Amino acid sequence: MSMRPFKSLIPLKAALDIVRDTIVPIERTEEIAIDSAVGRVLAEDITASMDVPPFDRAAMDGYAVIAEDTYGAGQFSPKKLKLVDATGAVNVGECIQIATGCKMPQGADAVVMVENTEEDKEGIKIFKPLHPGANTSGQGEDISTGSTVLSAGEVLNPSRVGVLSALGMQKVHVYEKPEVAIIPTGDEIANLGDDLKEGQVYDINSYTLSAIVNENGGIPIRFEIIPDKYEDIKSAMERAVRQHDLVAFSGGSSVGERDILCDIIRDMGKVLFHGVQIKPGKPTLFGVVVVPQGLRQIENKAVFGIPGYPAACMSSGYRFLLPAVRSLARLPKKIDIVVRAKMAKRIVSSLGRSQFLTVRLEGGIAHPVFKESGTITSMADADGYVDIPADVDLVEKGEEVDVILL
Amino acid sequence: MSMRPFKSLIPLKAALDIVRDTIVPIERTEEIAIDSAVGRVLAEDITASMDVPPFDRAAMDGYAVIAEDTYGAGQFSPKKLKLVDATGAVNVGECIQIATGCKMPQGADAVVMVENTEEDKEGIKIFKPLHPGANTSGQGEDISTGSTVLSAGEVLNPSRVGVLSALGMQKVHVYEKPEVAIIPTGDEIANLGDDLKEGQVYDINSYTLSAIVNENGGIPIRFEIIPDKYEDIKSAMERAVRQHDLVAFSGGSSVGERDILCDIIRDMGKVLFHGVQIKPGKPTLFGVVVVPQGLRQIENKAVFGIPGYPAACMSSGYRFLLPAVRSLARLPKKIDIVVRAKMAKRIVSSLGRSQFLTVRLEGGIAHPVFKESGTITSMADADGYVDIPADVDLVEKGEEVDVILL
Repeated sequence: MSMRPFKSLIPLKAALDIVRDTIVPIERTEEIAIDSAVGRVLAEDITASMDVPPFDRAAMDGYAVIAEDTYGAGQFSPKKLKLVDATGAVNVGECIQIATGCKMPQGADAVVMVENTEEDKEGIKIFKPLHPGANTSGQGEDISTGSTVLSAGEVLNPSRVGVLSALGMQKVHVYEKPEVAIIPTGDEIANLGDDLKEGQVYDINSYTLSAIVNENGGIPIRFEIIPDKYEDIKSAMERAVRQHDLVAFSGGSSVGERDILCDIIRDMGKVLFHGVQIKPGKPTLFGVVVVPQGLRQIENKAVFGIPGYPAACMSSGYRFLLPAVRSLARLPKKIDIVVRAKMAKRIVSSLGRSQFLTVRLEGGIAHPVFKESGTITSMADADGYVDIPADVDLVEKGEEVDVILL
Repeated sequence: MSMRPFKSLIPLKAALDIVRDTIVPIERTEEIAIDSAVGRVLAEDITASMDVPPFDRAAMDGYAVIAEDTYGAGQFSPKKLKLVDATGAVNVGECIQIATGCKMPQGADAVVMVENTEEDKEGIKIFKPLHPGANTSGQGEDISTGSTVLSAGEVLNPSRVGVLSALGMQKVHVYEKPEVAIIPTGDEIANLGDDLKEGQVYDINSYTLSAIVNENGGIPIRFEIIPDKYEDIKSAMERAVRQHDLVAFSGGSSVGERDILCDIIRDMGKVLFHGVQIKPGKPTLFGVVVVPQGLRQIENKAVFGIPGYPAACMSSGYRFLLPAVRSLARLPKKIDIVVRAKMAKRIVSSLGRSQFLTVRLEGGIAHPVFKESGTITSMADADGYVDIPADVDLVEKGEEVDVILL
């Protein structure tokens, strides 16, 4: 077992730039029912095949009239119109009761609001004059035939789903959710449900990383636990890069294994960084592996080596895997929800390392909950984290900080 | 067809308080695989059945030693230890190579970091003295047997899922997702895929409301389109309140129908408000309907009447249905993501009505996109909305406003 130290750590921003520049957004599309389309990314421009509404309609509850019949109406000089059956047309001197959204009857060109009328035996008194078009909305006012109402790349939020249904569309083309292979490695890792052998702990990382993938528009494909051996890891790598869109190995924590993965990426492609100026999560590894596609096509698949220690794994997952999955899925950058709080105690941070300091919020005070990289409760007990930049080595007690909610 | 005007409009906050006080959080629970648990609400306290880690382990890569053997070591006076096989124990004068996370060998009580050592033919030179326990982490340091690690009501984020897996749990009890009946009504509404008849438009609202339910922890149950008749609506209501957890009728826009729903709620329970000081969305209706459960148990089910006009429906959906679903699902209040922007033009708002003004953001400028309540594009073209309070009647061009992202 060799123990190669990291040659050099690269700054966090440089590492994130490399990830951003490497990930190729997914191209595969699928047609799905609009019932399940919310949150998905549109893969086609939507050109309206019809006018919405497909007719002129009433925009208020009241009476459909010919505007000219109301000219001169006033509070003390109402115009009287004859109320006729709703199924017919409106002729001069007539009106038809109409509700918001209903098609305007033939002949009518305005709607008088019910508040401005009075019904008596002889008909309807109109107390307010109207201009043609008053209180109506025109055919195609919402969507007009031939217009592009939605564009490929837009995320389908509830009202954009509403645009599809307004056009009568039951299905829509969206980008597929990318599949992310999550591969736990290490002989010291046991499957949930199995009895722990001497020196083993249960697999945590493939569940936490899968959850991050799930929450960010990807489909996690959780592999079986792979032993710490070159041939086993290489064969898992070959399967993963052929079948899935992105690969994240979640290392056990052994140094040997970390080197094996690095060697395999080098042998099958290129290591883009190994070691980042962050704490925890320093050993994060990223590269590309070449996948021969048929005879000539060559494709690069991005591969992460995520540190095996659970808290290091989580912070590396949030910092690197999360934006990579969103970018692959064509989702916009996650918007952080930030809360200002005062640090509960003095924090000494390592110069040259961006620290992911997990905290619990209580009444505007940020209490650090980080124990050590090996503990999942260092993350699970937190409401959020403070990102202490690499050039800051001290946060004073009571100092105001931005807490990014988890 | 009667046209009863709203007797009185209640303020937005009063309406929201009524909704909050009426919704009873779901009690039903289910057991699910932890693979699909992210975002779900825990329905049980989790008490640790084991220590995590279940043994003392190395917290660094290096050599497991007996701390006493390193006393007196220094940069120029290293202590020499004999490297022995990793499968055995550490005796006085010996060390064993160890990787982060691995179980400490018998006899050893500290780990010397690889950086503070040098290997030669005779063994390992140690350049730094260690105290007992240095660079190790103790059994149960992450989670100790018998401690409550997660509590009922907590939302399972990725690291909390990690806590479950750390304990070897494959399944977990969570609250069921509440089922929300979404019932489109009105003869003027057509099913997607059907040919539009004279005066008809496609069903928009049951899709937009379902999407809101989907995004906020509920399961939408989309009913077939119900005709505008007392008996039909009543029978849909009976089915909905018996089978589901919350009911939202999405009115067509006819006045008659609005009254029918109000009458049915009054006949089967109680109307809690009808008409809110908001724009759009004023006709929003809310009440409870009594569901006989067996012979004696009586349960109240909350029922919404959401305005039929698509933009009014959406804003009412965001303002009322969204918090109701989250509260029913036991999810915390949604945290709005707010962006400051300058209003692109002067906006006159109705005094006494809280306006939901949809805007598109471009370079820090908020451009209103609202056309009228009947248009879905009034919502779909928006990046967010400005909530203009009831007591504000004017927003000046260039005035800074909070835009709540949609």
